[in-house]
Amino acid sequence: MHSVHYLGDRLLVVAQGDSLPPRPGEVRIDVAYTGICGTDLTVFNGKMDARVTMPAVLGHEMSGRVAELGEGVTGWAAGDAVTVLPLDWCGQCPACIAGHHHLCHRLKFLGIDADGSMQNSWTVPATALVALPPDLDLRHGAMVEPLAVAVHDVARAQVSAGDRVLVVGGGPVGLLIAMVSRVQGAEVRISEPDPTRRSIARELGFETIDPAQEDLGELVASWTEQAGVDIAFEVSGSSPGLSAAVAALKVRGRLALVGVHTTPVTVDLFRFFWRELELLGARLYQRGDFDAAVALITSGQVTVAPLLSKVVGLDEAPDAFRSLESGGVMKVLVDCGTRQIVPEHDDNG
Amino acid sequence: MHSVHYLGDRLLVVAQGDSLPPRPGEVRIDVAYTGICGTDLTVFNGKMDARVTMPAVLGHEMSGRVAELGEGVTGWAAGDAVTVLPLDWCGQCPACIAGHHHLCHRLKFLGIDADGSMQNSWTVPATALVALPPDLDLRHGAMVEPLAVAVHDVARAQVSAGDRVLVVGGGPVGLLIAMVSRVQGAEVRISEPDPTRRSIARELGFETIDPAQEDLGELVASWTEQAGVDIAFEVSGSSPGLSAAVAALKVRGRLALVGVHTTPVTVDLFRFFWRELELLGARLYQRGDFDAAVALITSGQVTVAPLLSKVVGLDEAPDAFRSLESGGVMKVLVDCGTRQIVPEHDDNG
Repeated sequence: MHSVHYLGDRLLVVAQGDSLPPRPGEVRIDVAYTGICGTDLTVFNGKMDARVTMPAVLGHEMSGRVAELGEGVTGWAAGDAVTVLPLDWCGQCPACIAGHHHLCHRLKFLGIDADGSMQNSWTVPATALVALPPDLDLRHGAMVEPLAVAVHDVARAQVSAGDRVLVVGGGPVGLLIAMVSRVQGAEVRISEPDPTRRSIARELGFETIDPAQEDLGELVASWTEQAGVDIAFEVSGSSPGLSAAVAALKVRGRLALVGVHTTPVTVDLFRFFWRELELLGARLYQRGDFDAAVALITSGQVTVAPLLSKVVGLDEAPDAFRSLESGGVMKVLVDCGTRQIVPEHDDNG
Repeated sequence: MHSVHYLGDRLLVVAQGDSLPPRPGEVRIDVAYTGICGTDLTVFNGKMDARVTMPAVLGHEMSGRVAELGEGVTGWAAGDAVTVLPLDWCGQCPACIAGHHHLCHRLKFLGIDADGSMQNSWTVPATALVALPPDLDLRHGAMVEPLAVAVHDVARAQVSAGDRVLVVGGGPVGLLIAMVSRVQGAEVRISEPDPTRRSIARELGFETIDPAQEDLGELVASWTEQAGVDIAFEVSGSSPGLSAAVAALKVRGRLALVGVHTTPVTVDLFRFFWRELELLGARLYQRGDFDAAVALITSGQVTVAPLLSKVVGLDEAPDAFRSLESGGVMKVLVDCGTRQIVPEHDDNG
């Protein structure tokens, strides 16, 4: 059994160890694929060292098959295709009591606060499992988690048919938000400086804006007959992206804050006052968002294949983290199947 | 006829002139009282010189009686007690078409973009009139406009019965917001550093917090069983006030942004993400907010008398502006009755 271990200071190593047998109520999963997420990169860059316990196994965007059931687990069988809702909430705090489990005051996130899925075998509480259709391509199954983020964000922003929606930041989550908004009947445009990402966005049928070359304000004004957009999603996590999103909003427009701004940011609050704008923080998801994400992929309403830039072996994961920083790619999946990691037994292709 | 003229650079003078006879569709009002508002102080301090045309007559929180009707005006009679909805919207822009007249892209505000009510006689479009009950104390009638602000803000923040509401900033608008929130069934506390203002807040039945001496975060935690407040109103217009309001909110809590932050401000957006907070800009009011404000004063559900610190004559208005800057007062009304300004005819008391 191999795992990708984060050891601090941009150091990832592939280590060998034993699978964790499932305790009562747990399930062991043979992991198929794990996507590399922006949050994983944040951990990799040492910005969450206060939260992770090293050596830490990263990864939470995953798919796999049930391998072994712990005592008392029912409703699942070996071979079932699954993904995981990687949240462990307390059930007792004010947020949990109000039904906002994903905002639990003591939330543990599997893949940050506990070991994640970037390994051949992952043992999790059975309650965290989410069923995938048996015939779903498991590479697409690994996109259910980021799609659940997008489903949650679009619901939080109350996107409706006919809304004009600007997505600032055309990475995987930005494009998924764009696709889910389009399913809701919105007219969507995407602002993204990376040409590769813009090209994928256009392939998915979206009009794109290069904020480095074009005047976003003017384009929005002419698109919306001077009104501004109904909803902007700030997915870039950048200060210029935030400013552009705020400036693009119509009177009473809504800004969904999806990108993570870890340091206090300067905001034009006068514009919020003057136009009676609304800002909505959006974080994670709940189980219903996973169910909706599975349905969107299964029905073909959301197409995740164009977002998959490449699949690398578990042993190539450390290099893949570095390559993601140079841009020009979208989503990289790590193939966590055992065949990828033990070259002497390699029967792959 | 006398008017208080703003001439720029903290200079106010009382000037003599002729009343404007009403043109078709207009009404001339004999002004009774005009309150001095924070916005008037902002103009006085030169921060809105780009917007005002000097000499400018300030003032928009007013009461008076109809004196003269222009051609074609019906439904009003000389002597009717009135206040004014000081908004002149275009009716054509996207905001107007969407029904948000108060956010008109070309909004003219009477008292900033056109002459206001700090004069004996004020001529306005008849459509701007709002009827006051004939027996209402006109000093209280001058408080309808700031109360309409509070009504609008409380509606925008969707305050409901049982909500715990923190008001940051206990000036006139802050206390009016507190009172309207209480009418909605909310449990309200007020954070305000000025001891005079805190004392008036307590007189109105509110628990108060001195943010300079007490730990607001701890008080909120123990008040709300560690959850945080449902809604915070930022009425201070200060950066520490904003931070305190954000920090006080529960998961999914709402921050109503009432205080005007004219320069970009640093905001802890991570907290908005982490707790899925909501920020709502709130500006001005619509006619329905005026109607609600009149009803709240008339029914006695909101008591404005304790907010009235003093009444000064029109000739004392320039000094009153300066005195407001030293704190220790709440609302100052300018008596715009002609008896106050022409000492040789003074039969007052």
